[in-house]
Amino acid sequence: MDVAFLGLGTMGAPMALNLITAGHRVTGYNRTREKVAPLTAAGAKAATSPAEAAASAEIIVVCVSDSSDVEQVVLGDHGVATGARPGALVIDMSTISPSVTREIAQKLAETGVRMIDAPVSGGSEGAKNGTLSIMVGGAAEDVAYARPVLQAMGQTITHIGPIGAGQTAKAINQIIVAGTYWSVAEGMALGLKAGLDMKRVVQAVGSGAAGSWGLTHRAGNMIDQDYPLGFRVRLHHKDLAIALETARELGQPLPLAAQVEQVETGLIAKGFGDEDVSAIARSVREMGGL
Amino acid sequence: MDVAFLGLGTMGAPMALNLITAGHRVTGYNRTREKVAPLTAAGAKAATSPAEAAASAEIIVVCVSDSSDVEQVVLGDHGVATGARPGALVIDMSTISPSVTREIAQKLAETGVRMIDAPVSGGSEGAKNGTLSIMVGGAAEDVAYARPVLQAMGQTITHIGPIGAGQTAKAINQIIVAGTYWSVAEGMALGLKAGLDMKRVVQAVGSGAAGSWGLTHRAGNMIDQDYPLGFRVRLHHKDLAIALETARELGQPLPLAAQVEQVETGLIAKGFGDEDVSAIARSVREMGGL
Amino acid sequence: MDVAFLGLGTMGAPMALNLITAGHRVTGYNRTREKVAPLTAAGAKAATSPAEAAASAEIIVVCVSDSSDVEQVVLGDHGVATGARPGALVIDMSTISPSVTREIAQKLAETGVRMIDAPVSGGSEGAKNGTLSIMVGGAAEDVAYARPVLQAMGQTITHIGPIGAGQTAKAINQIIVAGTYWSVAEGMALGLKAGLDMKRVVQAVGSGAAGSWGLTHRAGNMIDQDYPLGFRVRLHHKDLAIALETARELGQPLPLAAQVEQVETGLIAKGFGDEDVSAIARSVREMGGL
Amino acid sequence: MDVAFLGLGTMGAPMALNLITAGHRVTGYNRTREKVAPLTAAGAKAATSPAEAAASAEIIVVCVSDSSDVEQVVLGDHGVATGARPGALVIDMSTISPSVTREIAQKLAETGVRMIDAPVSGGSEGAKNGTLSIMVGGAAEDVAYARPVLQAMGQTITHIGPIGAGQTAKAINQIIVAGTYWSVAEGMALGLKAGLDMKRVVQAVGSGAAGSWGLTHRAGNMIDQDYPLGFRVRLHHKDLAIALETARELGQPLPLAAQVEQVETGLIAKGFGDEDVSAIARSVREMGGL
Repeated sequence: MDVAFLGLGTMGAPMALNLITAGHRVTGYNRTREKVAPLTAAGAKAATSPAEAAASAEIIVVCVSDSSDVEQVVLGDHGVATGARPGALVIDMSTISPSVTREIAQKLAETGVRMIDAPVSGGSEGAKNGTLSIMVGGAAEDVAYARPVLQAMGQTITHIGPIGAGQTAKAINQIIVAGTYWSVAEGMALGLKAGLDMKRVVQAVGSGAAGSWGLTHRAGNMIDQDYPLGFRVRLHHKDLAIALETARELGQPLPLAAQVEQVETGLIAKGFGDEDVSAIARSVREMGGL
Repeated sequence: MDVAFLGLGTMGAPMALNLITAGHRVTGYNRTREKVAPLTAAGAKAATSPAEAAASAEIIVVCVSDSSDVEQVVLGDHGVATGARPGALVIDMSTISPSVTREIAQKLAETGVRMIDAPVSGGSEGAKNGTLSIMVGGAAEDVAYARPVLQAMGQTITHIGPIGAGQTAKAINQIIVAGTYWSVAEGMALGLKAGLDMKRVVQAVGSGAAGSWGLTHRAGNMIDQDYPLGFRVRLHHKDLAIALETARELGQPLPLAAQVEQVETGLIAKGFGDEDVSAIARSVREMGGL
Repeated sequence: MDVAFLGLGTMGAPMALNLITAGHRVTGYNRTREKVAPLTAAGAKAATSPAEAAASAEIIVVCVSDSSDVEQVVLGDHGVATGARPGALVIDMSTISPSVTREIAQKLAETGVRMIDAPVSGGSEGAKNGTLSIMVGGAAEDVAYARPVLQAMGQTITHIGPIGAGQTAKAINQIIVAGTYWSVAEGMALGLKAGLDMKRVVQAVGSGAAGSWGLTHRAGNMIDQDYPLGFRVRLHHKDLAIALETARELGQPLPLAAQVEQVETGLIAKGFGDEDVSAIARSVREMGGL
Repeated sequence: MDVAFLGLGTMGAPMALNLITAGHRVTGYNRTREKVAPLTAAGAKAATSPAEAAASAEIIVVCVSDSSDVEQVVLGDHGVATGARPGALVIDMSTISPSVTREIAQKLAETGVRMIDAPVSGGSEGAKNGTLSIMVGGAAEDVAYARPVLQAMGQTITHIGPIGAGQTAKAINQIIVAGTYWSVAEGMALGLKAGLDMKRVVQAVGSGAAGSWGLTHRAGNMIDQDYPLGFRVRLHHKDLAIALETARELGQPLPLAAQVEQVETGLIAKGFGDEDVSAIARSVREMGGL
């Protein structure tokens, strides 16, 4: 298909390359122009604005940082809305607020452009290997239309519900990551204080009710007090803010997610914002003087 | 081997049967006498006191409810210490305090009886199928001596460290269960408030960083608001109290485990103590009026 | 002095009347026109826009609901900035974000209009009786210029620091209210569960280290489970959001304030948003099944 | 009256002196013998055991550290129960568990000795000046009988309810202290991060809904990061453990008190256990890197 790809950062660049590999015709755009080079080297065209990229596209993928970026790229000057053909479909793969997603989709609809939200989990490694898990919100026919493009980038494509539902699912993902990691951090801290060989403990408890991806893949960071990426504290903090804002709108308290957000605020203030999210273990250890 | 088995409750009974099946010669004891019947039907002998059961045993397995029960059975009137032969080995498979474990072991040692701690995870199902995960604390030679008996009851036997270390590992297990389940509960509550099809959300987020045993096996309970056993709130609450007491002794704060303990205190007060631990989701839902 | 008063709600109306009583010449404006009537009956003039009200004023008091309201009234169409004379002074007595305050002040300064922030505590009763505590941020000379007007409305006028500092102090006020009330709620819940005569307990502990305004004035609500105003949960929730946003900007975790915000999110969802803030005790009682 | 005074520590010694000053005939006992000297210098007699001290007493005041100390002094070898005359009245002024209090009183009753609980607040200063607040649990006639003695030591004597009720009231006191101080700590941390003159903030917010004894008397410690006694973290931590144990028995969650207990566990581990309770502000500041 003819695909415009807007936003060629750590996630977007490898995702766009996977589209080319799968045989789609890609036109790339990025605010910082140089980032388009690897894509054009792989056979893509380059555009100088979202509007230009969108002009001849059947599908327009957006993969930027936050709500205001998406608004800018889609609805701003020289944005998608000013260039896209009626009937074109925007796939927003950024992680932003579900309610902002719905607002943007509604405004786009006035120009005849369709939109689905499709945030991902799986990190930069998943983006490279095309093994992302993609959570999709939108009309069934739009999701079906987008599927060939989504399948080139992800392994698990789940249609969650109507527009915004993908973003809500992503918020849920980040809420659970927050608490699961934190629980692992508490467990590791206690064991370290007790002087246990924590690799053995992780092995012993990992196959049962205490088992989690976080325990298997991140307890090591917490034991070694070394937090290589992974997924940045700073970005998870941004995502938790979206989750908490969504929870506020829906009237659902999230006491644990709120605690982890506070902890991450402190970590960022202390200069650990670019470490992996598992660095929340720093706070648990610090409380006990470990 | 000649094994005395003290405590034939929901966990102990099937564990003792597995010992018989594996060819060990078992003498059973239980405070409530009738509970020995199924064991004697399977070929075990019955004893009328821990001392009598221990008299001819190479290994004495203890599987009772709490610290004071273990003290009573091991050090009390007609307890193990008054009957066991020097050189015999006590395997305490109850979940109790690591520091009480060390005290009991020390007193036993004065009578020439050895002890290791070997609490389990895996529930009554794991006890039946012999697939328990067993976390062991004690001297290496004692653990080696006990291994044939442990292997008849569990699938994963991990020697964590010196006496008490098994109990500390079990405490860590329960700390992580607490927080992982709670994080899943928050995620489910948000999705339900948003009106999402939560089975799809669980499927979408379950394979990545948010994945856990709790999400795979207990999110369903939380979505359906139905909490069949599983593992009782009441027992998890008892185990968290041990974890928090241990943390206090070691000087390690556990803010999340402490919160879940408070929540469980309330659940028990409201009559939900005999539901599965995943019932902590009741509290999250209640906060949001779900 | 010639004073424009913009925003004649529950707080603004009695504050404006106190200005008239103190001899100031007041021109009132309110979005809903009828609310100006009591003021004109007391001798004030009425204006049909913020700009018109500001035109002849030395001092322009703004007392509206939130950041966007202040932006609208001050910088919007027919706003203060389009009508006020250079050298006029805006006193913003609304409770809004310190950083938004600084932005508005900066934009106003470009039109030659000065601004200080002066949020209040003391409730509608304090507004009526002129006994408000006013926390002021701004240049010393501007605060001095405003003092005769402030003194007609409040009993304690404290110049905290530069522009925005009044709002930060107000945020601190709300953070402390949140935690103090919550701590009283926990104490009351325990005593009620124990069946104590809580009036006696409040009397016994109130004069020492546990003493607080909240204990003296709001424990009764919590004991009787009746939460008459006071200050609305809904408004306190809005103020806590400002406090938490400010804390995020400054890199300071506030775990307790964040918890109370979550609790209040739930209370609002359950229909208690218009009760007094002491209704956070509902959540503590509910956890224990009281 | 003839009074035995058992436990002449930081609190007990000045309290016993106040009894002498008020004209009571005091016999003192302390485990460490030398501590009786100041009392005998003031005219008291010295005893070598609780039983001996109690032998001729109408009232026996107990003022020791914890539940096991009270049990030892009252029910142990050479304890009060072995020496006191039938009809004598024990006033336990230690801070211990309400349920342990009831158990001790019941056992004492079997020997014909009466008991009330009368824990205090007001610190060593209040003990010296006779201005303690005394929270009393027991039968009305016993409290009336004890009143002349209590009035010699405290300013406010409140009969809360039946035996144990004084201890429950004291637990409530410590719960409220925990949360009030913590809320002040959060407020101070935010203001310090914002660079405000915090003395002015304290003055501005202190007279309204945010006002508390903790704000007036302990915010200074938190601002200056200097935590002179006061009341030790270590002792408050012990009292919170009693409060939380009582809450567990009664089925009442106390999430905030539980958090502060965790924080204090960490402070003690890091060597701050002998600072004033206001040192919990260290933890808030540390989270933000202040």
